[in-house]
Amino acid sequence: MILAGRDLISINDFSNEEIEAVLNLADEMSSALEKGKRLDLCQGKELYTIFYEPSTRTRSSFETAMHRLGGTVVSHAEAQVTSAVAKGESIADTVRVLERYADVIVMRHPLDGSTRLAAEHSSVPVISGGDGAHEHPTQTLLDLYTIRKEKGAIRGKSVALCGDLRHGRTVHSLAIGLARFGAEIICIAPPDFELPDHIRDTLKAYRCKLTEYESLEGVVDEGSLVLHQAETSSRRGGARVGSGGQEGFMSFLLENLDVLYFTRLQRERLPTGEIGDAAEESYRINRQLLEKSRDDALIMHPLPRTGELAYEVDHDKRAAYFRQAGYGVPVRMALIALLLGAVERRISEGQKKKIPKPAKDVCGVRCPNGRCVTNAECYATAKFCQVNPQLLRCYYCDWLVQVA
Amino acid sequence: MILAGRDLISINDFSNEEIEAVLNLADEMSSALEKGKRLDLCQGKELYTIFYEPSTRTRSSFETAMHRLGGTVVSHAEAQVTSAVAKGESIADTVRVLERYADVIVMRHPLDGSTRLAAEHSSVPVISGGDGAHEHPTQTLLDLYTIRKEKGAIRGKSVALCGDLRHGRTVHSLAIGLARFGAEIICIAPPDFELPDHIRDTLKAYRCKLTEYESLEGVVDEGSLVLHQAETSSRRGGARVGSGGQEGFMSFLLENLDVLYFTRLQRERLPTGEIGDAAEESYRINRQLLEKSRDDALIMHPLPRTGELAYEVDHDKRAAYFRQAGYGVPVRMALIALLLGAVERRISEGQKKKIPKPAKDVCGVRCPNGRCVTNAECYATAKFCQVNPQLLRCYYCDWLVQVA
Amino acid sequence: MILAGRDLISINDFSNEEIEAVLNLADEMSSALEKGKRLDLCQGKELYTIFYEPSTRTRSSFETAMHRLGGTVVSHAEAQVTSAVAKGESIADTVRVLERYADVIVMRHPLDGSTRLAAEHSSVPVISGGDGAHEHPTQTLLDLYTIRKEKGAIRGKSVALCGDLRHGRTVHSLAIGLARFGAEIICIAPPDFELPDHIRDTLKAYRCKLTEYESLEGVVDEGSLVLHQAETSSRRGGARVGSGGQEGFMSFLLENLDVLYFTRLQRERLPTGEIGDAAEESYRINRQLLEKSRDDALIMHPLPRTGELAYEVDHDKRAAYFRQAGYGVPVRMALIALLLGAVERRISEGQKKKIPKPAKDVCGVRCPNGRCVTNAECYATAKFCQVNPQLLRCYYCDWLVQVA
Repeated sequence: MILAGRDLISINDFSNEEIEAVLNLADEMSSALEKGKRLDLCQGKELYTIFYEPSTRTRSSFETAMHRLGGTVVSHAEAQVTSAVAKGESIADTVRVLERYADVIVMRHPLDGSTRLAAEHSSVPVISGGDGAHEHPTQTLLDLYTIRKEKGAIRGKSVALCGDLRHGRTVHSLAIGLARFGAEIICIAPPDFELPDHIRDTLKAYRCKLTEYESLEGVVDEGSLVLHQAETSSRRGGARVGSGGQEGFMSFLLENLDVLYFTRLQRERLPTGEIGDAAEESYRINRQLLEKSRDDALIMHPLPRTGELAYEVDHDKRAAYFRQAGYGVPVRMALIALLLGAVERRISEGQKKKIPKPAKDVCGVRCPNGRCVTNAECYATAKFCQVNPQLLRCYYCDWLVQVA
Repeated sequence: MILAGRDLISINDFSNEEIEAVLNLADEMSSALEKGKRLDLCQGKELYTIFYEPSTRTRSSFETAMHRLGGTVVSHAEAQVTSAVAKGESIADTVRVLERYADVIVMRHPLDGSTRLAAEHSSVPVISGGDGAHEHPTQTLLDLYTIRKEKGAIRGKSVALCGDLRHGRTVHSLAIGLARFGAEIICIAPPDFELPDHIRDTLKAYRCKLTEYESLEGVVDEGSLVLHQAETSSRRGGARVGSGGQEGFMSFLLENLDVLYFTRLQRERLPTGEIGDAAEESYRINRQLLEKSRDDALIMHPLPRTGELAYEVDHDKRAAYFRQAGYGVPVRMALIALLLGAVERRISEGQKKKIPKPAKDVCGVRCPNGRCVTNAECYATAKFCQVNPQLLRCYYCDWLVQVA
Repeated sequence: MILAGRDLISINDFSNEEIEAVLNLADEMSSALEKGKRLDLCQGKELYTIFYEPSTRTRSSFETAMHRLGGTVVSHAEAQVTSAVAKGESIADTVRVLERYADVIVMRHPLDGSTRLAAEHSSVPVISGGDGAHEHPTQTLLDLYTIRKEKGAIRGKSVALCGDLRHGRTVHSLAIGLARFGAEIICIAPPDFELPDHIRDTLKAYRCKLTEYESLEGVVDEGSLVLHQAETSSRRGGARVGSGGQEGFMSFLLENLDVLYFTRLQRERLPTGEIGDAAEESYRINRQLLEKSRDDALIMHPLPRTGELAYEVDHDKRAAYFRQAGYGVPVRMALIALLLGAVERRISEGQKKKIPKPAKDVCGVRCPNGRCVTNAECYATAKFCQVNPQLLRCYYCDWLVQVA
């Protein structure tokens, strides 16, 4: 039986075959829901949602997924205020208690790596509903599901990731997922909002074709923007191109994109809100831009949107973001059912994910990420995986550390 | 099958026959509950409560109603903080996602007309749990149920509405409901807290007998208050009456009232709290006043109370407000079951409510109500129904607009 | 049928035999859970949790307990913000409404005696989830369950209560429970954090062997602390002892303790946080101190911890606090099932608890406890039980009042 008892903290916790098993089961769940069939696969099981940050879609769709499976839910919607955390409780203590009440725990927390720390202290499966700016793996499951269902496949598709690629945990997990399933990635991110190094590094390891640009909408306005383009894993250099050439190039680009995936600026993770306004303008999608896109392109967004996605786009058939949100229920039903061992699925032995064990002895090294959970919770020890003799990767937040 | 798939945003969304169908079914629900019968009419169905304002009774009784019907609930008790709204999400986006998870949605929101806007964007039934100072239609259903059950009928009863009739959404829906079912309405409201024009206008259209006064308790104190009385739909004029005459008149009034319906000052909707204190005094009910009332009068209150309803009244058998709150469960069970199509009821074709379509072309007119949702949500367009060639009514908040 | 329809506000609301009935049934519930048996004893029943203060364990374990019994839950996790209390609603009004929706109510509130007031106004059972600094009776049930299960018995055991014994409601209920079941109590509390007089008084009435000290850890540090020791019910005097003698004495003490029960400083109930820091140091438990304890000692803590319980203790087999938290589910299942009359248990007639009626006429006396609910809710009347001709005990918060 696959996945029973496992955690899902990073999309890399599951092998490709394991991810496909979830997506296939989600298809079955979806059909059952459409036929109005009752699924009581998880009767008598208890799901806990523990959210230290606001949520509409993630918490709701997990709770509905559990109800549709016949299970019950205990909800901590604002755990930073309503739970013992208000009295100073640590993540570890919270989890070591709740694992005795719950059969499966879904946690969202503002610190990078926090959900991994939680999983380490829990004997029941922990699912990350998002940890700081790090990952949001179940969003990626439903994003992959959306592309597979609406475009027929993931392999070979050109997917543009547009927006705040630095602080948006959603796109971190998604970029890795796309790379692993053989999609081509085009990044459109304003300066200071590009993909973090550790993600770019991971994509390189998967031999992903990656191209990066600074702006999308400028082109449509036929302005004289500076266009930056960079090859995979190199730092982005600048190159001024003429308005005509740029226009021609970007039209070509839009005509070749299968998916345009937009994300909002993560203002709650920026030092000040102001620097976001200009950035937001640079990748806004509206009807004008839509006209230049392919007829069968897919406009996706994890929601909530702010200014980057105009309401006028909603009426276009290519706008897939509400359907995408809707897929959250069958995908999360499939995930819960598999982690609880309520559904039997088998995959060949070699296809099971082997989760890398952190290196045991990296004396005196601290994670350089100020938002990493190891720098916030006193009992947590920094742990690292050895990438190469000079490079460590934080076991919790995936940031890279150069060592002598 | 009546009501299946419908919304309930204004009490005027249902015809009298449809309202009676709900109340009749509530009677059956009530009997079933008393006998301890399990009703699994809504098994496998999911209700969402999304509350952007505090609530005890409304949210609780909806959730218990759904549980008593065998269904499940996902709860957003403080949606302005715990949901994506904290990240800037619009009402439309929230609803367009949640309609994919829920079978029926109950929403409370501080803006007038917000729940109508929500219903427009939802393919599943939306029930208003109160929208700003506009309406609270399910409270009216249980208020009508209370009067019908405890007084035998609504038609011909004299019902005094006492308190903040301007900002209290509860009395807006109720006044319309009472008018439609043939009750006589006596309004007791301090200056600046009278019924809004659009409600007074609606009551006139239903040929409701309406009388308005400024104060209730002053009379019992035998003070020399200025007594204001006004005929239906005219502005209230002032007339000083002698203490004796006033006393005699008010005693006569109290002796003829079947129902005294009290409401609190909506301090959260006032510019400053201070102006409320004096106003509250003017319609306070206590034992003294109760002594002058009829033996079979009904004292009602939607709760919570503040100072206007003395605790000493609780012990009187005429105090109906806790029973009234209790009726919220069977009434909301009936409503949910009908909107979900879980119960079959038929009414003759002509008795189905025809909801007026908003006029299509009212170029450049904005709703004058600063708290109307159309002045707050950027994608929302003001829409109006034509009352007469010079008068428009806002499709969302019902405020009236004079046009040239 | 015992306990059906009863409230649990103070541990003294149940007789010893009634408490044992709960613990025995909890054992059965625990076995059933371990075997994965579904218990649908409370199907169709509705539990309300109404929490005016943060909670992780208490609310969660009650909700899971109800789910494991097949019942449903409506949750008010932050009732001071999300409910009508935000509009000024009283405890009595809240309860008089919710008793019409719920089959059983669990309430936590910051005022002493608040849950007793709630129970007075409710026709359905009210369970206290903690009332101010007064009591937390269900925590005591699971604490007694833990000692009985892991030490075989309560009678004759030496139990040290360490920490903020003044403001910690948990230890108030526990001290009484331990005294009634024949345990010996050793109090370790910094100055100004000792047991309140009314608790010390109650322990005396149960002829409990009680010894009190000022500090625990000082000894291990071999410092020259002032050691205070006092006999039962006398005020604590001071006596300077030499470092050697102190060490010898405390080692002797630790060697004889069966249970060390730690609690955090209740900083939210202190005038300023600062005075807590030094106090916390004086009873901190770490590995050093653990080494001096008995091999079969039990380290307990109601959680959450702050600084008084070092993380290094967690790995010791004597650390029982997470298991203790886990027992919350079967114990609360047993309690709910008994109060709802879903399980039949009988005890001999004389063993039923007789709850003392408050004296009727104590004119003009107010409770001296500023945090007592009778000093906060306008409609609440102070009531007292006559302890002796000169002494009254507040019916709500148990504080003592000398009368002439």
